[in-house]
Amino acid sequence: MAETKIPYKIYLSEDDMPKAWYNLRADMKNKPAPLLNPGTGKPLTAEELSPIFCEELVAQELDDTTAYIEIPEEIRNFYKMFRPSPLVRAYCLEEKLGTPAKIYYKFEGNNTSGSHKLNSAIAQAYYAKKQGLKGVTTETGAGQWGTALSMACSYFGLDCKVYMVKVSYEQKPFRREVMRTYGASVVPSPSETTEVGKKILAEFPGTTGSLGCAISEAVEVATKNPGYRYVLGSVLNQVLLHQSVIGLETKTALDKYGIKPDIIIGCAGGGSNLGGLIAPFMGEKLRGEADYRIIAVEPASCPSFTRGTFAYDFCDTGMICPLAKMYTLGSSFIPSANHAGGLRFHGMSSTLSQLYHDGYMEATSVEQTSVFEAAEMFARVEGILPAPESSHAIRAAIDEALKCKETGEEKTIVFGLTGTGYFDLVAYQKFNDGEMSDYIPTDEEIAASVAKLPKVGE
Amino acid sequence: MAETKIPYKIYLSEDDMPKAWYNLRADMKNKPAPLLNPGTGKPLTAEELSPIFCEELVAQELDDTTAYIEIPEEIRNFYKMFRPSPLVRAYCLEEKLGTPAKIYYKFEGNNTSGSHKLNSAIAQAYYAKKQGLKGVTTETGAGQWGTALSMACSYFGLDCKVYMVKVSYEQKPFRREVMRTYGASVVPSPSETTEVGKKILAEFPGTTGSLGCAISEAVEVATKNPGYRYVLGSVLNQVLLHQSVIGLETKTALDKYGIKPDIIIGCAGGGSNLGGLIAPFMGEKLRGEADYRIIAVEPASCPSFTRGTFAYDFCDTGMICPLAKMYTLGSSFIPSANHAGGLRFHGMSSTLSQLYHDGYMEATSVEQTSVFEAAEMFARVEGILPAPESSHAIRAAIDEALKCKETGEEKTIVFGLTGTGYFDLVAYQKFNDGEMSDYIPTDEEIAASVAKLPKVGE
Repeated sequence: MAETKIPYKIYLSEDDMPKAWYNLRADMKNKPAPLLNPGTGKPLTAEELSPIFCEELVAQELDDTTAYIEIPEEIRNFYKMFRPSPLVRAYCLEEKLGTPAKIYYKFEGNNTSGSHKLNSAIAQAYYAKKQGLKGVTTETGAGQWGTALSMACSYFGLDCKVYMVKVSYEQKPFRREVMRTYGASVVPSPSETTEVGKKILAEFPGTTGSLGCAISEAVEVATKNPGYRYVLGSVLNQVLLHQSVIGLETKTALDKYGIKPDIIIGCAGGGSNLGGLIAPFMGEKLRGEADYRIIAVEPASCPSFTRGTFAYDFCDTGMICPLAKMYTLGSSFIPSANHAGGLRFHGMSSTLSQLYHDGYMEATSVEQTSVFEAAEMFARVEGILPAPESSHAIRAAIDEALKCKETGEEKTIVFGLTGTGYFDLVAYQKFNDGEMSDYIPTDEEIAASVAKLPKVGE
Repeated sequence: MAETKIPYKIYLSEDDMPKAWYNLRADMKNKPAPLLNPGTGKPLTAEELSPIFCEELVAQELDDTTAYIEIPEEIRNFYKMFRPSPLVRAYCLEEKLGTPAKIYYKFEGNNTSGSHKLNSAIAQAYYAKKQGLKGVTTETGAGQWGTALSMACSYFGLDCKVYMVKVSYEQKPFRREVMRTYGASVVPSPSETTEVGKKILAEFPGTTGSLGCAISEAVEVATKNPGYRYVLGSVLNQVLLHQSVIGLETKTALDKYGIKPDIIIGCAGGGSNLGGLIAPFMGEKLRGEADYRIIAVEPASCPSFTRGTFAYDFCDTGMICPLAKMYTLGSSFIPSANHAGGLRFHGMSSTLSQLYHDGYMEATSVEQTSVFEAAEMFARVEGILPAPESSHAIRAAIDEALKCKETGEEKTIVFGLTGTGYFDLVAYQKFNDGEMSDYIPTDEEIAASVAKLPKVGE
């Protein structure tokens, strides 16, 4: 009966918030492979990265030995606006499922960006401001990262240029307006504002754009305009570092009640949320201090871990960015129109890829319709309308809890609820109308794009 | 420097949550005037109200002597999903304004309904379930109340029929989809599903509906179908009672840090949020234990307190509902297309109207463009995108804080931040594009609708 003492929501005090990020790479024996210069095939140096990223972020990107990196006070103050985020005991979901499992979720959606992206956006904006830059550029597809970055830049008085994939710009006007409310300039991509944009428009006049094209435009603007740098919301080591605040808070909250999770589950697109959530737990695992089952959940339509290849590849479809060694479907892979925009990335964080390769974590893939079934059940019993991305983790958590129901095991499951679905109601509408479809790429499709992987770093 | 000990967000523990609602009317010497039967002009009895509202809610509606009414455990458990809500110290807003004032806001938007409406929706659904009813009907305009009720009904397994004003149904498909995700049936009003709907459609084939018409349809369905009752999200005494949870938590949080507010501010449409926020403070004032400035903020386009008449009037434009004594612009008053849908009501809660009439509170009106200026500033510094309704309170709080800047007074201001603006981005877009307009009704317009007030209860 001590069990009932655990509240629905475990809130930490502001004093309990982490004062340093945890750099998982410091505890990895096999470090993630370095980024390569696509021209030379050699590891990129700080000097080569500095025209693109601001200096402190380059240092964080390359540092794989320092375990704890202090969170500057300015960032900690901003975090206090929306952190500590609650760790919620899913009593109602447990009851609905009739499972003996104990389910917890770390909810990162209670901020206006609607997701965990703000954790890294504010850090990247802070370092840009500290370096005396005028502004930053980025790309956004679904818009969560662009929104988070707009909020962060507004706070520090930085200019923010967001290249938004044209089809999203037109179909998701509300996301665009949130960014504009935060003072960002939002440009539909491809645009006439860049050389690469003009070139693409000349070649494909009717194109509705792509993430790869938007990245190319954002990088061009950052490198051509003095006082600007480019920022990215996932995949990179620096982003996983900043997101470790999720896992550190989760661990502190669990420790407060003496709870040891058996299974930790996160959705995985580029890896920012998953890498952040699991960081301190994976650290214990790497140091041999504890063991956990750690599960990455990806969409069956874009299964980089479960069906991809561990190899060097471009991070963008435009093939202008550094090469990263990762599980990838090939940068030319075009995922189906899955509604979880944040998970439609062909590759995966190098750090997580190495850990998966070394057997420290599992991966599973789930189909879209079953994800929305889980989302609907969760919304109804837990009261939160989840983002499609987050709902992949919900699906996997429910499946694990149902296994416990069969076996009678009282496992403790923790999953990351990365965000809310207020801007994803077109997807919910399709589901409500019974018009949602599932698409799983064929082996041939994946083989075709994997065959185009660059021949470097082998 | 003791000041710095106050965290950004004051969270109560679940044990600190109120176990009883506070019934403000018990401490009022001049009780709010009773609801009248429009046919007889006499006070409505419990028997007359029971075919419309469920029994325990009728009892709460009529009870003006019991100060504390226990919150059933089932409701308290549901509250734990999204309560206690944070009382936030607006450090960043204070800094932006350069004011010596200390600003706090009680944030009710961190739940999927996006507003405080869930506090009463769950109570009303609970009593309906307890009475063994099959379901409830309601109307919704902007959709916040309909969303909250859908969530509450889903939790208790009640059928929920929402009549949504046709123009909103078509223009706000996302709100509709949230309700559907929670299992509600959402019908565009006027519809062919009711006699009154058919009649209106025959008379005005192209009509896009009105709240008055939607109320009529919802009431018809509730009274004609065994096992159904009608529920309402504002104005009524029972709703203010449930919303007292806002004020009780606010007071507990302030008391925890020994803070005594000087000014308490809330936006006012039908009065649900304002009545809930101020309840315990007004109680102290009524009992002569403390004094506070209490300010209701309404849109200049729909100024029931500041330019209305204190008289009996219909609560609906269809004139089928009971008569309530209140500050009203007349039930035939049609407010301009202000974007704060929740504040476009011609009247005001009888309880608040009586208190205002007796001089216990002030009222002020603000114009739409200045409201969105305040909303934008608030979003940028405090990180929360506010609902247009809530932004009326923000505007007034900023204005009071700026007065403190002039006088150097360190006043403590508390305001209610009722909800988020994720479904109001059409309004933000108009503001961002510089296309927002202000409209203030002329004296003649108000006089014309006031002249049509019913001649009863005088």
